[in-house]
Amino acid sequence: MKFIIQRDRLVESVQDVLKAVTSRTTIPILTGIKVVATNEGVTLTGSDSDISIESFIPKEEEGDEIVEIKQTGGIVLQAKFFSEIVKKLPKDVVEIEVINHFQTVIRSGKAEFNLNGLDPEEYPHLPQISEENIFKVPTDLLKTLIRQTVFAVSTSETRPILTGVNWKVENGKLSCIATDSHRLAMRSAVIETENEAHYNVVIPGKSLNELSKILDDTNEAVEIVITDNQVLFKAKHLLFFSRLLEGNYPDTSRLIPNESKTELVLNSKEFLQAIDRASLLAREGRNNVVKFSTLEAGVVEISSNSPEIGKVIEEVQSQSINGEDLKISFSAKYMMDALKALEGTEIRIDFTGAMRPFIIRPVHDDSILQLILPVRTY
Amino acid sequence: MKFIIQRDRLVESVQDVLKAVTSRTTIPILTGIKVVATNEGVTLTGSDSDISIESFIPKEEEGDEIVEIKQTGGIVLQAKFFSEIVKKLPKDVVEIEVINHFQTVIRSGKAEFNLNGLDPEEYPHLPQISEENIFKVPTDLLKTLIRQTVFAVSTSETRPILTGVNWKVENGKLSCIATDSHRLAMRSAVIETENEAHYNVVIPGKSLNELSKILDDTNEAVEIVITDNQVLFKAKHLLFFSRLLEGNYPDTSRLIPNESKTELVLNSKEFLQAIDRASLLAREGRNNVVKFSTLEAGVVEISSNSPEIGKVIEEVQSQSINGEDLKISFSAKYMMDALKALEGTEIRIDFTGAMRPFIIRPVHDDSILQLILPVRTY
Repeated sequence: MKFIIQRDRLVESVQDVLKAVTSRTTIPILTGIKVVATNEGVTLTGSDSDISIESFIPKEEEGDEIVEIKQTGGIVLQAKFFSEIVKKLPKDVVEIEVINHFQTVIRSGKAEFNLNGLDPEEYPHLPQISEENIFKVPTDLLKTLIRQTVFAVSTSETRPILTGVNWKVENGKLSCIATDSHRLAMRSAVIETENEAHYNVVIPGKSLNELSKILDDTNEAVEIVITDNQVLFKAKHLLFFSRLLEGNYPDTSRLIPNESKTELVLNSKEFLQAIDRASLLAREGRNNVVKFSTLEAGVVEISSNSPEIGKVIEEVQSQSINGEDLKISFSAKYMMDALKALEGTEIRIDFTGAMRPFIIRPVHDDSILQLILPVRTY
Repeated sequence: MKFIIQRDRLVESVQDVLKAVTSRTTIPILTGIKVVATNEGVTLTGSDSDISIESFIPKEEEGDEIVEIKQTGGIVLQAKFFSEIVKKLPKDVVEIEVINHFQTVIRSGKAEFNLNGLDPEEYPHLPQISEENIFKVPTDLLKTLIRQTVFAVSTSETRPILTGVNWKVENGKLSCIATDSHRLAMRSAVIETENEAHYNVVIPGKSLNELSKILDDTNEAVEIVITDNQVLFKAKHLLFFSRLLEGNYPDTSRLIPNESKTELVLNSKEFLQAIDRASLLAREGRNNVVKFSTLEAGVVEISSNSPEIGKVIEEVQSQSINGEDLKISFSAKYMMDALKALEGTEIRIDFTGAMRPFIIRPVHDDSILQLILPVRTY
């Protein structure tokens, strides 16, 4: 293998596939990045066996030569060293050559590195995924869908299925649901599908976070292929594979109340800041529980009290309150997470009493919903 | 105590004094910030007993009212909570009032905090320093003096005196010296003194780092007062006290060689980047030792070798080499620290053989010097 490549493009691709590489693996070859040169260009692969990322650098793009292939072939190079080296090379162009016994020479200007590589034949093969059932989501929408739901996955391995986000495709609609059993985030969107296929899978939250980081902010479509145990996201020059979580995701639809006893409309930013301040003196270790109560004339009081430190009272003027008076306690952290995920400036909260889950959503948008279970303190 | 204050000024002063406050103190009241309102303005104090910082907010500045004092007095408030609270208050103006039993009310807009304070009389008094022997250093020069030396202090408590920087004032010149016994940094500057006083003290590296962080980038003079066991830095509205280290600082003058056998002139940036790359494959745990050798025609080779990972060879074209050929090994980290501290684009290195300390300095500047002890590997 021998090729000459533009350093910036190499650095970018190495950074992308590096997100799948971990040093905490029991399979030594997975601490490396696989580099393969063909007559079409150079492909880099990184994997931790849960997530695999493949980045392709074409020989030419828009008439500019990016890679000059001198000899095809492949090598696996230690990710930690290879990524640091390419970042710091002195010139805009890099030559990479495998000499004998997987010895690899990396040259740029007057710098010459000699790295011990590994046999690319020993690198695990990526799953072969038939591309029959594809659906498409614009990149920016995909990133929004992830951002608005993934924060609500469980971080505990007690119920592993809850560490993932439940993706359902049905009737041309994608619904994403995440819950850690104390709160729930749901977002849906109309998508472009090729057929009447429907899916119901659970994608690890960690995979979605990593995917979100490497996708550019464009509106180009990402192609998504779901199989029995894998999902593949295909963006321009990028393949992102993730395993799916096994098991049945709980039916969350009956968690969501259909009726409400108290409905409020609030300015989202003002409410978020008041909760943030009130949480400063909320007892630690209990998820910063704050008290919320309706007062006269559409005023809402948010308060917390830590006997040793002090107490805080915040008042927020709601835009409207309908229904019963209410006193309720909830986690300030969950409320702030939910408010940050919503995009509207005005939000509506539907309560069904102090002991029942309540729902937060933008005033004019039914595609997103956040649910929080209250805490019993009153 | 009761006053109304502009929030931004309060936040700024709280952030400054907070740098002296630590939660790892055995004196509970030192986890607080002392707030004192007089008819002149408000003074905040933070201290960890090694460093004490006092920030003054005047009633008026350039005709603008900053504080309105309603009632003089004082209080000590938990630094952790007080600093978070003032940062997040909703309005530009804050009212702070001590009611009964050190209970303190902080009001801004519709937010009202009630904090349990402590008796300001129990807060330790700051040292009384007579202001007879003052010398002055412009703020930007002071920050440069610190930056160019403090990185070389020892991080080990084996010889506590080496965790400080040795400041010597003599004949209108300030010299700052730091060494961890493997390398040494020295910088001197002509300063404005009031008399013929001379000093020889050791200031903790940590204190100088904190001081540097809170000083603005101006050329206004900082007044410096040195006593037997304290140093005081006086900037506008800011007092910074630090204890001095006890003990005799070693005489470092005989460490610095007077003669040299090999002299080089190099481009600082190019050399730094080559060392940085060579250190990537240098054995870890040995301070990233790299080899340096002079070749033909003014070329310098920098190399390192880690049998399991690979090796690297860098070539740098020197601007001139005089004297004997040389092969020497040294810590890449120490060399990079030294090169970053020097400000020149061209640097000169004077070697006195492979086993002797060598000196790096800018080509046209004798006020700064970096010394490194080689490592025996050749």
